[in-house]
Amino acid sequence: MAVAMEGERIVAVLPRADAFARFQDASHVELPRHVLLPGFINMHTHSAMSLLRGYADDLNLQAWLNDHIWPVEKAFVGPKFVHDGTRLAMAEMLRGGTTCFNDNYFFPEVTAAAAVAAGMRASIGLPVIDVPTAWADHVDDYINKGLKVSSGWQGETLLSTAFAPHAPYSVDDEAFGRIIALSARHDMRVHMHVLESEWEVGESLRQHGKSTLDRLNDLGLLNERLLAVHMTQLGASDIALLSDTNVNIIHCPESNLKLGDGFCPVARLLEQDINLALGTDGAASNNNLDLLAEARTAALLAKGVAADPCTLKAFEALEMLTINAATALGQAQEIGSIEAGKLADMCALDMDFLQSTPMYDVVSHLIYAASSQQVTHVWVGGRMLLEDSSFTGMDLDEIIDRAKRWAVRIAAGRGATGA
Amino acid sequence: MAVAMEGERIVAVLPRADAFARFQDASHVELPRHVLLPGFINMHTHSAMSLLRGYADDLNLQAWLNDHIWPVEKAFVGPKFVHDGTRLAMAEMLRGGTTCFNDNYFFPEVTAAAAVAAGMRASIGLPVIDVPTAWADHVDDYINKGLKVSSGWQGETLLSTAFAPHAPYSVDDEAFGRIIALSARHDMRVHMHVLESEWEVGESLRQHGKSTLDRLNDLGLLNERLLAVHMTQLGASDIALLSDTNVNIIHCPESNLKLGDGFCPVARLLEQDINLALGTDGAASNNNLDLLAEARTAALLAKGVAADPCTLKAFEALEMLTINAATALGQAQEIGSIEAGKLADMCALDMDFLQSTPMYDVVSHLIYAASSQQVTHVWVGGRMLLEDSSFTGMDLDEIIDRAKRWAVRIAAGRGATGA
Repeated sequence: MAVAMEGERIVAVLPRADAFARFQDASHVELPRHVLLPGFINMHTHSAMSLLRGYADDLNLQAWLNDHIWPVEKAFVGPKFVHDGTRLAMAEMLRGGTTCFNDNYFFPEVTAAAAVAAGMRASIGLPVIDVPTAWADHVDDYINKGLKVSSGWQGETLLSTAFAPHAPYSVDDEAFGRIIALSARHDMRVHMHVLESEWEVGESLRQHGKSTLDRLNDLGLLNERLLAVHMTQLGASDIALLSDTNVNIIHCPESNLKLGDGFCPVARLLEQDINLALGTDGAASNNNLDLLAEARTAALLAKGVAADPCTLKAFEALEMLTINAATALGQAQEIGSIEAGKLADMCALDMDFLQSTPMYDVVSHLIYAASSQQVTHVWVGGRMLLEDSSFTGMDLDEIIDRAKRWAVRIAAGRGATGA
Repeated sequence: MAVAMEGERIVAVLPRADAFARFQDASHVELPRHVLLPGFINMHTHSAMSLLRGYADDLNLQAWLNDHIWPVEKAFVGPKFVHDGTRLAMAEMLRGGTTCFNDNYFFPEVTAAAAVAAGMRASIGLPVIDVPTAWADHVDDYINKGLKVSSGWQGETLLSTAFAPHAPYSVDDEAFGRIIALSARHDMRVHMHVLESEWEVGESLRQHGKSTLDRLNDLGLLNERLLAVHMTQLGASDIALLSDTNVNIIHCPESNLKLGDGFCPVARLLEQDINLALGTDGAASNNNLDLLAEARTAALLAKGVAADPCTLKAFEALEMLTINAATALGQAQEIGSIEAGKLADMCALDMDFLQSTPMYDVVSHLIYAASSQQVTHVWVGGRMLLEDSSFTGMDLDEIIDRAKRWAVRIAAGRGATGA
């Protein structure tokens, strides 16, 4: 089979011979040993945090945040940090077949510009949190700066924007009210950490006298625009509510495991036909952005947690990487599958590797055996960004060099920041 | 730092300048961007089953075995299958930094010869099971053939042999009696699947009127020579008994997850100082032999299961890959660490990769971020088997070609075998 592209779109998926006949003047790439897939979509990233990869591990969430991550962020996070960290993250994601990422970090205008410069597709989160940071001082400041980012990039097909309130416990009802109204008016997604850990369950009862999901439902947040990330603390009534309201769940199994946060009940969510996609979370809590490996972890973990080897089959895991994520973003008409008319976001994996030999079932190999190092080609909007495992545009040496310089400064500052 | 080798052993670990002064005539390999590690030891493999990688997935254990794996094994397993499958497995393992594997499969004389021919270290399991197979007809036949393999390879430093009774439910007390006596007399390990699934718990009570571990203890099997694989069904009293008897536990997290078999309680085993090592299991239930990825899964899963992000820290996971495995094999004086006097089994990983950038802590990166594709050099007994990511002796094209031919035959026979 062949895929024909013109400009940023796929124009035909057709037999090879037909493609040569119909597009005689087109340049082409032959990939006889490969499988061609829709580009992977990483539905939860804090891209710039790649500069903090492995900075602090094997700690509980509160110690990790309070004693390590937040002090170092306070000391170093600014536009240059976000620029260099995002570029490092994008290079790693592209190298592994990811063509689009749904980000949440400060200085989103920097992330947006870096994505466009790299030619990568992104959903740019507009952060909102009850505490001041280097980027904004208070809720109105966050929202106004966010809206400015959003309106500034109108018409850029590589970008969309989403509100990114940090979490139910760190954003108050009034702020949620504004976000909900704006999200409905502009049809923007709301990307939020929800029920990441057990602590949050009690915290909602203490702060609001009701469960997290009851509160979000009362506020009007539970709908198809919500991208609820983590969701490790769900009872049966929660799952029914999520199903009724068409919430999208973004599963980050490796981050949840590493922080000992509990298990997202994937098998039960699948039974209710809830839309599930995947995120790596930031490299500070994963510690890589390997989405194919994340799909493998998801497929294995779902079986372990449900004690059911028949749940989250290989093809369902592949859907979580691609079309389910596009659906979550509200962009299933544009990305998430290889179809004529859609944007040409694709990756190709060389299957002639030891760990993919022999082959009985290509989808099984993709999820259970292959490595993201087998990705050799990546296209975003018809532009080839990775060719024969090399970047066509990004200066990898410079990206790595800058990351190393940051690490020297950050490691030297470890004492000074208290981290 | 530098490591000096002479013949099959490490003779010194010393500063680089001292190495150049003391070993002036020695050839040397410069690896400035690398980390040098003890070779990884895969403590549970069915190597030849690599030919069945991805043959059947997303099934429960009984359907997977009865309807797929056993019929295809019955139709195809013989010396040629074992030879070609073991070579495929060894290539994959060496490529990922594994220098030694603890195998359990039929025709162990073929596995042994293949390992020696490849220059790879192995503990060859001598299978015993209550049912006839292509290799042997009955228990005495298994044991006698096994002892012949064992005595035939006396003096080969690359090899050791271990009894490999299949599982408590498939070997009777009389056979265990013989195995225990022979294991004690010849100081041989006993490599066995134990408490892999919940079904086995009830089966022991039905068959023997006691729990699996009580029965094995009464038989005299619980001691430092036992390599108990899986162990997903352990209560508090079981853990105390295992600690008292110095049993080694071989944890196969990915296989356990994929088959939905339950969780080995790693955090609680660590608290009792029980020796824990890692295995990938066969590629038919994993579906790769990537031991570094297995260590990552183990480190993540232990935290998730215990709801404790501080358990199984990165360095402990690295110990499971190396010195703990050597201890389990009774070979900690010879392998498992880089020390003068030990056998030179080592691997080197290039850390100048996107997913290892930047670096604050090399051990964190090895376990949580790196990919086994970063392995560039591997030595076994002082012989370099992988150099700059290429095999020095194995004919990779031939190995892959043979595996593909098997897959054609096996796929064609799917109907005929009923599988």
